[in-house]
Amino acid sequence: MVTRIGLVGLGKMGNNMRARVRAAGIEVVGYDPRPEVSDVATLADLVAALPDDGPRIVWVMVPAGDATRGVVTELGGLLGEGDFVIEGGNSYYAEDQARAAELAEKGVGYLDVGVSGGVWGLENGYGLMVGGDRTYVEAAMPVFDALRPDGPREEGFVHAGEVGAGHFAKMVHNGIEYGLMQAYAEGYELLAAKSELVKDVHGTMKAWTRGTVVRSWLLDLFVKALEEDPQLAAIDDWVDDSGEGRWTVDEAIDNAVPLPVISAALFARFASRQEQSPALKAVAALRQQFGGHAVKAAGPASPGAGPLEPPA
Amino acid sequence: MVTRIGLVGLGKMGNNMRARVRAAGIEVVGYDPRPEVSDVATLADLVAALPDDGPRIVWVMVPAGDATRGVVTELGGLLGEGDFVIEGGNSYYAEDQARAAELAEKGVGYLDVGVSGGVWGLENGYGLMVGGDRTYVEAAMPVFDALRPDGPREEGFVHAGEVGAGHFAKMVHNGIEYGLMQAYAEGYELLAAKSELVKDVHGTMKAWTRGTVVRSWLLDLFVKALEEDPQLAAIDDWVDDSGEGRWTVDEAIDNAVPLPVISAALFARFASRQEQSPALKAVAALRQQFGGHAVKAAGPASPGAGPLEPPA
Amino acid sequence: MVTRIGLVGLGKMGNNMRARVRAAGIEVVGYDPRPEVSDVATLADLVAALPDDGPRIVWVMVPAGDATRGVVTELGGLLGEGDFVIEGGNSYYAEDQARAAELAEKGVGYLDVGVSGGVWGLENGYGLMVGGDRTYVEAAMPVFDALRPDGPREEGFVHAGEVGAGHFAKMVHNGIEYGLMQAYAEGYELLAAKSELVKDVHGTMKAWTRGTVVRSWLLDLFVKALEEDPQLAAIDDWVDDSGEGRWTVDEAIDNAVPLPVISAALFARFASRQEQSPALKAVAALRQQFGGHAVKAAGPASPGAGPLEPPA
Amino acid sequence: MVTRIGLVGLGKMGNNMRARVRAAGIEVVGYDPRPEVSDVATLADLVAALPDDGPRIVWVMVPAGDATRGVVTELGGLLGEGDFVIEGGNSYYAEDQARAAELAEKGVGYLDVGVSGGVWGLENGYGLMVGGDRTYVEAAMPVFDALRPDGPREEGFVHAGEVGAGHFAKMVHNGIEYGLMQAYAEGYELLAAKSELVKDVHGTMKAWTRGTVVRSWLLDLFVKALEEDPQLAAIDDWVDDSGEGRWTVDEAIDNAVPLPVISAALFARFASRQEQSPALKAVAALRQQFGGHAVKAAGPASPGAGPLEPPA
Repeated sequence: MVTRIGLVGLGKMGNNMRARVRAAGIEVVGYDPRPEVSDVATLADLVAALPDDGPRIVWVMVPAGDATRGVVTELGGLLGEGDFVIEGGNSYYAEDQARAAELAEKGVGYLDVGVSGGVWGLENGYGLMVGGDRTYVEAAMPVFDALRPDGPREEGFVHAGEVGAGHFAKMVHNGIEYGLMQAYAEGYELLAAKSELVKDVHGTMKAWTRGTVVRSWLLDLFVKALEEDPQLAAIDDWVDDSGEGRWTVDEAIDNAVPLPVISAALFARFASRQEQSPALKAVAALRQQFGGHAVKAAGPASPGAGPLEPPA
Repeated sequence: MVTRIGLVGLGKMGNNMRARVRAAGIEVVGYDPRPEVSDVATLADLVAALPDDGPRIVWVMVPAGDATRGVVTELGGLLGEGDFVIEGGNSYYAEDQARAAELAEKGVGYLDVGVSGGVWGLENGYGLMVGGDRTYVEAAMPVFDALRPDGPREEGFVHAGEVGAGHFAKMVHNGIEYGLMQAYAEGYELLAAKSELVKDVHGTMKAWTRGTVVRSWLLDLFVKALEEDPQLAAIDDWVDDSGEGRWTVDEAIDNAVPLPVISAALFARFASRQEQSPALKAVAALRQQFGGHAVKAAGPASPGAGPLEPPA
Repeated sequence: MVTRIGLVGLGKMGNNMRARVRAAGIEVVGYDPRPEVSDVATLADLVAALPDDGPRIVWVMVPAGDATRGVVTELGGLLGEGDFVIEGGNSYYAEDQARAAELAEKGVGYLDVGVSGGVWGLENGYGLMVGGDRTYVEAAMPVFDALRPDGPREEGFVHAGEVGAGHFAKMVHNGIEYGLMQAYAEGYELLAAKSELVKDVHGTMKAWTRGTVVRSWLLDLFVKALEEDPQLAAIDDWVDDSGEGRWTVDEAIDNAVPLPVISAALFARFASRQEQSPALKAVAALRQQFGGHAVKAAGPASPGAGPLEPPA
Repeated sequence: MVTRIGLVGLGKMGNNMRARVRAAGIEVVGYDPRPEVSDVATLADLVAALPDDGPRIVWVMVPAGDATRGVVTELGGLLGEGDFVIEGGNSYYAEDQARAAELAEKGVGYLDVGVSGGVWGLENGYGLMVGGDRTYVEAAMPVFDALRPDGPREEGFVHAGEVGAGHFAKMVHNGIEYGLMQAYAEGYELLAAKSELVKDVHGTMKAWTRGTVVRSWLLDLFVKALEEDPQLAAIDDWVDDSGEGRWTVDEAIDNAVPLPVISAALFARFASRQEQSPALKAVAALRQQFGGHAVKAAGPASPGAGPLEPPA
């Protein structure tokens, strides 16, 4: 039975997760490169602080890519036969498979866990998607039970398949998330564009939060955002993307799966970050070439007026 | 205070709504062209059965278009000054404005109500979006309170604006619904395409129903559908569209609002109903013309194999 | 045999067309509200100046909508049995059908002609798509032959069907045009984004103008635009739309025809004209709500940096 | 001065290219695994047959991937300092960079050439996009001049950049090609859907081939295809993709370039190859869940009829 685990990475997510696990009665030794928040000085100290009457478990919660790779490799040198690492970040699933193979050479196990829930997870619990061997999954179940939402286990936890399946599932989850958000956002924009008819956009969306087909947690958050800033006046339309939306589309292409909605949501984010779209500059240039259509000069200029003539 | 209303249209939706209003203690006189389900023989009988110590209220719940138009016009001849009609179907919002103007000439009022909730509304209540004059909205509030979900009124009801605003809001709601469904569906397809890794697609989606960012009522229904038919084997990929998705895109175009996700969801449905896509036949023909690429002969033939060569 | 026609509207297109018709030996009486370019003072003068030994023909080349409607209606009062109007602007095809019906009551005929070729038509000739009765088409053939490009008639002219067919065909032509331009533009942007590898974007596109699958007149124009301004530095990404792209998508929706590419090209133009996208502001707000993701404050601010953590 | 080159791969493309090079007075020693079409028995024989008074040049024209990799590696063992390989297939540009590095260890050079023109190249010449060192490009120029179309060199040939640039440019070229074809195809479908108005779809598209904005070589081919089969009755809507469209979208994602049109064209092809779309099955299932909407049973069944009721 798990009594104490290690946790590497005490950022916003890691910190909240530590609190939730501790609240369930499991001790957590946290490590972070920032000494002021870390429980131990080094990864070696963290491993040394774990009980050895069963598998030692270290949950890794650091940015995907080099950071995760570095931590997992270092843990491979500190842990031993039967111990295992839980990669809870957003690693690419093929990267999980590579890391698991690397650890397996030392007899160290590996689980990949997709974690959803954001800053609300501390209170609501986190949705968990797990990949890896059943043995490790069962050994870590008390930790998963601590982290997942209250309610039936299968509504907030799944052992989705072998190593990589957890992060693949999370990747798809995030791809869906892109599509959902863009769908609500497009509807919002259309409502707002028709404000001479729909006087109460915020109230309309709030009225969708019970009983309707489109009700969801994201909609609740949308309504909350409008409550805080009814015109979203303080927020720029610049939208980052975390990488998982890109992977989702890449995977779809590899598998010849059409993904018109999720890709459109991704491209909308790319476009949101462009000061000027080279493609649309090109379209403007083309229209000018064939039709003599007015273009808007680059720079702080007034909008070009179209010619008073049938278009070409 | 409303003690009895009329209800025209006793299909699946109308019937459920009658039950819910009655359960709240308001009498309902229902009319339907099918005598076996109708409470009265004619619309005139229905109107005659309504109390005349306040405005007479007739809720119309029949298919949009000619059917609704016919019923509303007939009611205009039967109702009088101060009475009003509630159009609860899925009329186009400009159609509402025309109907309201028609009734106004006779002093009869008009509310348009977008109703969401499907077959679950009987139990859960219906999300209601209302357009029209405040006077009528207030007079009908006991009916709206009967129909909407339990909980704070503003989470299942909105007086969105003047006549047309209710159905405009419902139209946008349904456009969003198209996008949400397609987003989940694309994610599902990608999970299913990777079934050698993600062994438990149903379980994965079920694990998203608590705690995750993508949790929603539609997701709950998706999981339910997979419980009933894990491979969706009994369901064809032919998807109808009700018209409101089309209107949503039309409106967006009129207002120069980009709608990439909702339009993609709509087009996916159009494509789902084509035995053969004329456009893709054309692309195949073009590829054959310039590259000598193999095409698949129309009819019950085997898939064409591509040539063992670099493409043109 | 046609010896002289009337032409209403002497803008850029009308003026060029007058020159081309005259060069073919057909006299043109031009009318324009601007006296300094007009051959006659009024529409009545124009009609009076036409020969009456055969049908009088008046070509209308003014902006679609009210302007065209006004001119056609006025001509209906001036022309007589057997005469006919040629609507060469970009009228909506249903508008053609209404105008033709209006004129038919007076025995006046109507042809609608979609005209493509832009400012280059004077030199290269115009592609012509005609709708209406065969009798009128044959009577006007010398004019069509004067306007269309040299070469076989059927490569620059079609009698596509009854009234409306010409402008329907032109509408679809323009919808395709949107898609073609956006396709080249996207490719251009990707080349330009990889300029550390593809050193010569302009040269690359120029090398596509002979022999390749993508060669076209639009590509020639693109290369010309890059010759004049290699970085398109002087051109803003603000792109107007003439209305025909909107009609194309509207028609597709009416006919349940999937139009993913043409609609995407249209929406890209809509987005190009937004200072801030309400939809993407909403997505940014949502991400902030669930994940605490950094947003960029509206206004002249620096880009927000993403958090150093796994995304939610 | 080049007098004789080697050519590996005598498929449709290779065979035509051999003919065109020979017609320009340069000898070609062809090798193909099929003895009946090969000029020599082995790659070693091919190399031995090349003149050694200057760099030996071997053009490789075999399927991308393992085949190309195998041939290039084998040539690396046969060629020597100053010789070079021209990869004319459709290799991924990063693969070019790897192959070039491999050959560079032996002093053997490498050019990558994107070749466009399809089966028409024999007659019209091929558009050529070249990546690699200037020295090799200049040495091979007589071969490029033989292959490219007549006319100014820069209209059918470009030295686009270092190794990889040629295939990157060709990849983008093909991505654009997807978008162009889909744009024409969508327009065609809409015309054909409105055949009660546009009586002559083939004639309409033929009339676009001169003077119009949309004229292009692809349009000429489209008209030719309709001449051969006016309804495209013999052609299935199943459309393959060669891989370069996928790479184009992958690259765009890596570079955060929005590609709505090209990706939509790619996804339309994916969808064209699905007997049943899992995503649309899911949408149908969802609609059934919330609205009781009729679904079409999978299998050889009649289309489901929607309910006579307002949609949920």
